[in-house]
Amino acid sequence: MALALSLGRRGQGATWPNPAVGCVIVKNGRIVGRGWTAAGGRPHAEPIALAQAGTAARGATAYVTLEPCSHHGKTPPCCDALIAAGIARVVAPLEDVDARVSGQGFAMLRAAGIEVTTGILTSEAARDHAGFFMAREQGRPLVTLKLASSFDGRIATASGESQWITGPEARRLVHLQRAAHDAVMVGGGTARADDPSLTVRGLGIAQQPVRVVVSRRLDLPLLSTLARTAKEVPVWLIHGPDADPALREAWAGIGATLIEVRADGRMLDAGDILAKLGDAGLTRVFCEGGGALAASLLGADLVDQLIGFTAGLALGAEGRPSLSAMGIERLADAPRFKLCEARTVGNDLLHIWRRAEL
Amino acid sequence: MALALSLGRRGQGATWPNPAVGCVIVKNGRIVGRGWTAAGGRPHAEPIALAQAGTAARGATAYVTLEPCSHHGKTPPCCDALIAAGIARVVAPLEDVDARVSGQGFAMLRAAGIEVTTGILTSEAARDHAGFFMAREQGRPLVTLKLASSFDGRIATASGESQWITGPEARRLVHLQRAAHDAVMVGGGTARADDPSLTVRGLGIAQQPVRVVVSRRLDLPLLSTLARTAKEVPVWLIHGPDADPALREAWAGIGATLIEVRADGRMLDAGDILAKLGDAGLTRVFCEGGGALAASLLGADLVDQLIGFTAGLALGAEGRPSLSAMGIERLADAPRFKLCEARTVGNDLLHIWRRAEL
Repeated sequence: MALALSLGRRGQGATWPNPAVGCVIVKNGRIVGRGWTAAGGRPHAEPIALAQAGTAARGATAYVTLEPCSHHGKTPPCCDALIAAGIARVVAPLEDVDARVSGQGFAMLRAAGIEVTTGILTSEAARDHAGFFMAREQGRPLVTLKLASSFDGRIATASGESQWITGPEARRLVHLQRAAHDAVMVGGGTARADDPSLTVRGLGIAQQPVRVVVSRRLDLPLLSTLARTAKEVPVWLIHGPDADPALREAWAGIGATLIEVRADGRMLDAGDILAKLGDAGLTRVFCEGGGALAASLLGADLVDQLIGFTAGLALGAEGRPSLSAMGIERLADAPRFKLCEARTVGNDLLHIWRRAEL
Repeated sequence: MALALSLGRRGQGATWPNPAVGCVIVKNGRIVGRGWTAAGGRPHAEPIALAQAGTAARGATAYVTLEPCSHHGKTPPCCDALIAAGIARVVAPLEDVDARVSGQGFAMLRAAGIEVTTGILTSEAARDHAGFFMAREQGRPLVTLKLASSFDGRIATASGESQWITGPEARRLVHLQRAAHDAVMVGGGTARADDPSLTVRGLGIAQQPVRVVVSRRLDLPLLSTLARTAKEVPVWLIHGPDADPALREAWAGIGATLIEVRADGRMLDAGDILAKLGDAGLTRVFCEGGGALAASLLGADLVDQLIGFTAGLALGAEGRPSLSAMGIERLADAPRFKLCEARTVGNDLLHIWRRAEL
């Protein structure tokens, strides 16, 4: 199952709106088939692994990281394929939350005489599928917030110099993390200041994450890397009701997708931003700041995972803060996370924190 | 030698102005004596270990973490004791930098027919003795700066609430770190805001570190924990030339030691603060902030080791920063440190950084 989970994670970022599932078929203690959900979400993991196994699937055990689907969607149900291949036993950590599956897959397998075992590595699987489950249950994607800062929490000097606070090893890891998400999201200030490409580079991936920029007034430079490449890799612009129609048309004209959300004072409503991204099918969003967008997501309790990179340099209080004002008066009101991992990456410190229930 | 180093570290914080040395005597593969410099710096590690070994010292090997002393100070030279006990071989990582020893100890042992081996675990020993070496060579103690902050580098909310950002496990570790230093140092703002005791609690140690408060104008509350306990555990007040004579007298009257240093604009001169502490015999100082003192030490390149505790909560930009303004315009001008250790302490992250050459 641990192998199946690690295979499933290979699809993360590329299978949305579908879950990234892994499947391993074992016959007499030997692995005869391996599969994971393909980019675009089809084919599913099970038929890929079954095809590899061929006739060896007869009487074998299939380890699948999520309940196999039982409904006719854009692919035939995986349960049919497992039954037809003569699989004797299916091991899966947990039920799918999709109302079209939710227990019916297991029931269909059992009705066909297949032994079904659940409850193996359930919490790991739940974490891997957290984005898909949130999208289905709460209508919003999982949000990972990355903050790369100096020892004292600064992301740039007073003059705005920010390249590079962290080292090349940390920056390479950021590309790996981008690739494991459906979309990379930044605020308009960051897009203006850094002219970022927000693509995954150096990893030879099949599908680039969507690039999402949050800009209430759409006051983003049309002469920018994002604008120039909007036809090659999707650019989604989240804007407010007051964005100028001419700017909307200009951006639509160069290939960007425009998404209007509610305003909340001077900012856009963080909940509505994520709801709209959920409607568009995203299950995992990687937010890279800036400070205003990050503070707004944290303040609305919409951050599920925090990834920190801390560099060994001190910039002092004139430096730009990693988080803008949050209006927190008492420590008890501050959003809290639990520490899950800490390690050295080059000369920087990587630390990963999660919402307590993840 | 690793054992001798770990024994030596037991004395850290209690032996100043002497180095904290460890000694292990081994005869036929068996440990027959162990010792470390006693609190107050006397007796030295070698006579303690020799006394334990008794006649077994004859023909044995002595592992000592620093070149044994060859001069008559407040104790007779350890070289004499080693020779008299009939030690056959002395293993030590490096020479003492004290001009009264510096190679003469090894020479004295060799002249007496004792085999001397050096160069074992030299960098570890150099790090352990770094405070003593700096005090001798540069006239200032080693400085460890501790910063405990939220995920975004804040040490308190806007309203000043700071207890507790980190958890009890991290706070206990701070007491261990205080105990391994000769003095604990804070700025006047921290002394006013937190009314700290700055003592080591819950560890049953023999000697409390000196409590140093840096306050240019000596505007510290006389009704405070520090003032009330100044006769029990030393309180040293670092002040500027403009401190009111009445305040000087009041603090001297309740048992504090007053140390005047040069002013540098509105702050006290960080180099002069450390020079005066070095003159007073300190070899290891543990600075716990606040932001102004920390920024002034970092800005003057006087921090040798940074100890960070990062808690999993976000406070936003109104929170109080861990470092005050440092006047850094370009990343290349920022003081940089190398990452030496990172681990979980309770639900907080501990990270230790050192000056590149340490």
